[in-house]
Amino acid sequence: MTTASNLPVTRALLSVSDKSGVLEFARFLHSQGVHLLSTGGTAKLLADNGVPVTEVSDYTGFPEMMDGRVKTLHPKIHGGILARRGQDDAVMAEHNIGRIDLIVVNLYPFEATVSKPGCSFEDAVENIDIGGPTMVRASAKNHAHVTIVTEPGDYARIQAEMEASAGCITPATRFDLAIKAFEHTARYDGMIANYFGARVGEASHAAPATFPRTFSLQVEKKQDCRYGENSHQAGAFYAEYNAPQGSIATAVQIQGKELSYNNIADTDAALECVKQFDGAPACVIVKHANPCGVAIGANLLEAYNRAYSTDPESAFGGIIAFNQPLDGETAKVIVDRQFVEVIIAPGVSPEAVAVVAAKKNVRLLTVDMWSGDVPNRLDFKRVNGGLLVQTADIALLDELKVVSTRQPTDAELLDLQFAWKVAKFVKSNAIVYASGNMTIGVGAGQMSRINSARIAAIKAEHAGLVVPGSVMASDAFFPFRDGIDSAAAAGIKAVIQPGGSMRDEEVIAAANEHGMAMVFTGMRHFRH
Amino acid sequence: MTTASNLPVTRALLSVSDKSGVLEFARFLHSQGVHLLSTGGTAKLLADNGVPVTEVSDYTGFPEMMDGRVKTLHPKIHGGILARRGQDDAVMAEHNIGRIDLIVVNLYPFEATVSKPGCSFEDAVENIDIGGPTMVRASAKNHAHVTIVTEPGDYARIQAEMEASAGCITPATRFDLAIKAFEHTARYDGMIANYFGARVGEASHAAPATFPRTFSLQVEKKQDCRYGENSHQAGAFYAEYNAPQGSIATAVQIQGKELSYNNIADTDAALECVKQFDGAPACVIVKHANPCGVAIGANLLEAYNRAYSTDPESAFGGIIAFNQPLDGETAKVIVDRQFVEVIIAPGVSPEAVAVVAAKKNVRLLTVDMWSGDVPNRLDFKRVNGGLLVQTADIALLDELKVVSTRQPTDAELLDLQFAWKVAKFVKSNAIVYASGNMTIGVGAGQMSRINSARIAAIKAEHAGLVVPGSVMASDAFFPFRDGIDSAAAAGIKAVIQPGGSMRDEEVIAAANEHGMAMVFTGMRHFRH
Repeated sequence: MTTASNLPVTRALLSVSDKSGVLEFARFLHSQGVHLLSTGGTAKLLADNGVPVTEVSDYTGFPEMMDGRVKTLHPKIHGGILARRGQDDAVMAEHNIGRIDLIVVNLYPFEATVSKPGCSFEDAVENIDIGGPTMVRASAKNHAHVTIVTEPGDYARIQAEMEASAGCITPATRFDLAIKAFEHTARYDGMIANYFGARVGEASHAAPATFPRTFSLQVEKKQDCRYGENSHQAGAFYAEYNAPQGSIATAVQIQGKELSYNNIADTDAALECVKQFDGAPACVIVKHANPCGVAIGANLLEAYNRAYSTDPESAFGGIIAFNQPLDGETAKVIVDRQFVEVIIAPGVSPEAVAVVAAKKNVRLLTVDMWSGDVPNRLDFKRVNGGLLVQTADIALLDELKVVSTRQPTDAELLDLQFAWKVAKFVKSNAIVYASGNMTIGVGAGQMSRINSARIAAIKAEHAGLVVPGSVMASDAFFPFRDGIDSAAAAGIKAVIQPGGSMRDEEVIAAANEHGMAMVFTGMRHFRH
Repeated sequence: MTTASNLPVTRALLSVSDKSGVLEFARFLHSQGVHLLSTGGTAKLLADNGVPVTEVSDYTGFPEMMDGRVKTLHPKIHGGILARRGQDDAVMAEHNIGRIDLIVVNLYPFEATVSKPGCSFEDAVENIDIGGPTMVRASAKNHAHVTIVTEPGDYARIQAEMEASAGCITPATRFDLAIKAFEHTARYDGMIANYFGARVGEASHAAPATFPRTFSLQVEKKQDCRYGENSHQAGAFYAEYNAPQGSIATAVQIQGKELSYNNIADTDAALECVKQFDGAPACVIVKHANPCGVAIGANLLEAYNRAYSTDPESAFGGIIAFNQPLDGETAKVIVDRQFVEVIIAPGVSPEAVAVVAAKKNVRLLTVDMWSGDVPNRLDFKRVNGGLLVQTADIALLDELKVVSTRQPTDAELLDLQFAWKVAKFVKSNAIVYASGNMTIGVGAGQMSRINSARIAAIKAEHAGLVVPGSVMASDAFFPFRDGIDSAAAAGIKAVIQPGGSMRDEEVIAAANEHGMAMVFTGMRHFRH
């Protein structure tokens, strides 16, 4: 093993596609007496601005070839990076190899290239960097002696360290940057593997499959959790690069205890559900991954009050999400009334911040207002030894089609659409009773649909809510007419469901017998 | 853009850590008139066996340096790989660079190195390959002209193609191998990033964190699914490298329709649950991710019959898992009685295969018998914009502690332990009623514990099962005594639960008032 060296930087190689800040950084390095090597556009930028720089081809004595495909792949460069200081000095001297102590390289953004509309396969391939990753990896391997900088954001830190300690960079910084370097190359090659792997067997490479042959993923740690789903499990929360606005991954915590593993999962469920409602103020309360109360109101307070009244028992210790900025009055009613784990909204008024501050444990989160869903967003489900990957369920319905003799009234139609949006976020089998844009009973997570319906009715009764006149949503079709018969007996007036059962005729006949309106959506929303 | 060339292989570079088959393959290449370049141990192996080979250092005129850190990082090698045939010929001639058409390289197995007990950080770093990945990536980028082989398993295929077409390899094969190459380097650097990233801020790099700073994952596609969780979603199933024996990822399908996305998820749930039971024959029936019937029997048939009787309504269209090889008699009773999506067992008798063959849609799967759980197996939960990562819930309990005045009887204790194992696999809040090693009622996925208890009771009643005398398991503690009071009213005689509520005293007092036995496990099993 070699000991980490603490020699000052004497020679640096700079070759960047992102040129921001590189001229100033190069000037600083030059002012410290560092010999600068560079290639192509970076070399030109420095030379044009009067910073003395040696072209790598002049340094190696080997010309840049093949439109830049071969520039830095030379033993004088890689010997200078990989040499173990103190151990390889003789061989370096013998071959006239000087050490290169600092490498500043970033790779051409392959992801951005292939995301461009109309990017051809050939363009993508041409943009695969070979020399850059090699220098990044070689420097990171030899981080005991060499510093690798892959992001302009790290220039200031390097400059500060060099200024503070006579041109030296600490081993801790070198290791930190080496980690970043391998994260960078792993992600880079993962994107190439995903891009190539979606084109298996495609002669033209033009029409990618949805799922590549192997799937490579890299995510960044946002926080370690105190524990996982249970206290004997360890857990952490990772975010995607470029996580979408208005998601739990980009939410900002204003106050309260650290989010737990379960908080994060439930807050995601609550936020994604409330995002279904645009226009009128809406509130979703989630407990154990299921909405236990959802409502629209004339204002946020009314929306919350109505959502709460669906199931006050379950709302205790719940997660509350809003689709509009939280005001002080609503915040006050919440914290005065109930134990709440998390409140999240697209914005929080100063009054609301002040009100919640009185309960220091309550986690108060704000998110930027969301826009549309990311197309082809991926969803994962873990199984032992593997991973199920699917495109996320971002659609709502295919087409609303009245299949009963009786048309739904306007009010029923609004309630049906409301209930349908909620049912999409309830664990399957899901049955939702709703009335006046408010959930009346939520039957979640049952192994038979009829049991979910029983639970919805029980919960409505338990909360003292009136079922007769309500509507019912079912996340999947009714396999038999019994679900309709029992709903009718409970006083349900209209039903929304995907349709598509072998016994649709029998189910529709049941609705007609009971004078119910029935609407098909043509789309199922299992959620497990 | 350059057109893919179809030139015969004239020069190959071989440098492998896995030497299996390489000598025979080199002999074949030599017999085809291919000029062989090699390094280190591979060169020695070939030379010792009389295969003419040129050392890379002789070819480049630059010696191997720094204990092999710099060998192939030379323009004569990389120009020979990266040159665009037909376009870069002049510059190649000028610099005496001959084309290298075939690269046979595999990387030192970093994963195996760091998995070795006692592997030091320095050993790990020393085993990071720089030259190898550069050749792999360069060849894969230039797959229009160059063939990259990273696995001995591909030698035969290359040999067959070269023999069939005068030393040429098809563009389709070159692209296929280029995909494999980037999959290989992405996975390789992902492992390094995970290894380094778990040692952030660790001066000694000795004590890794559970979760690295970024998390890199690569999985291999096992199958595209017809669709995802719903028909408007696309889905695929990926397996880990080295997926464990006795898991859905390594199960073998004997017959039936292709597994759907939901089949895979539910089969995993059923299999992992039945694996809790060793010794006596056990059966688990899963529907919508929850066990709807679990039982132990004197034989598999009895186990199935009892599991089925818990909830025949939900068992319809379920997934059935066994912990012992499936026999013909049990198979016959299943397929005669019920619609079943999947049957999985550690082995299937020829009689069972024949019986199930009569129902050609039924998916029949066999797995190797499992051994213990993989330590630190990871579990994932997707949220929008991020990923929750945790160590899987592979523990069962901390310590069984009787907290009631009355000790459980031996029979009760067996039932409590049985119910506890089931409750661990039921979605939270979970309440399981059991008696005589059989579930009597399963209350799953509710937002309040008392509702889960209500459902367990409803289901038992619905199935015509007798609750009095049964035991109850709860996946988490009881926040209030009401759950105990209502269980007692239903005739429950003993309760198993984690304990740990602020109101444990009140809850224990309730059990004592009712003459119930109560056992704490000290471990919660939320599962969402």
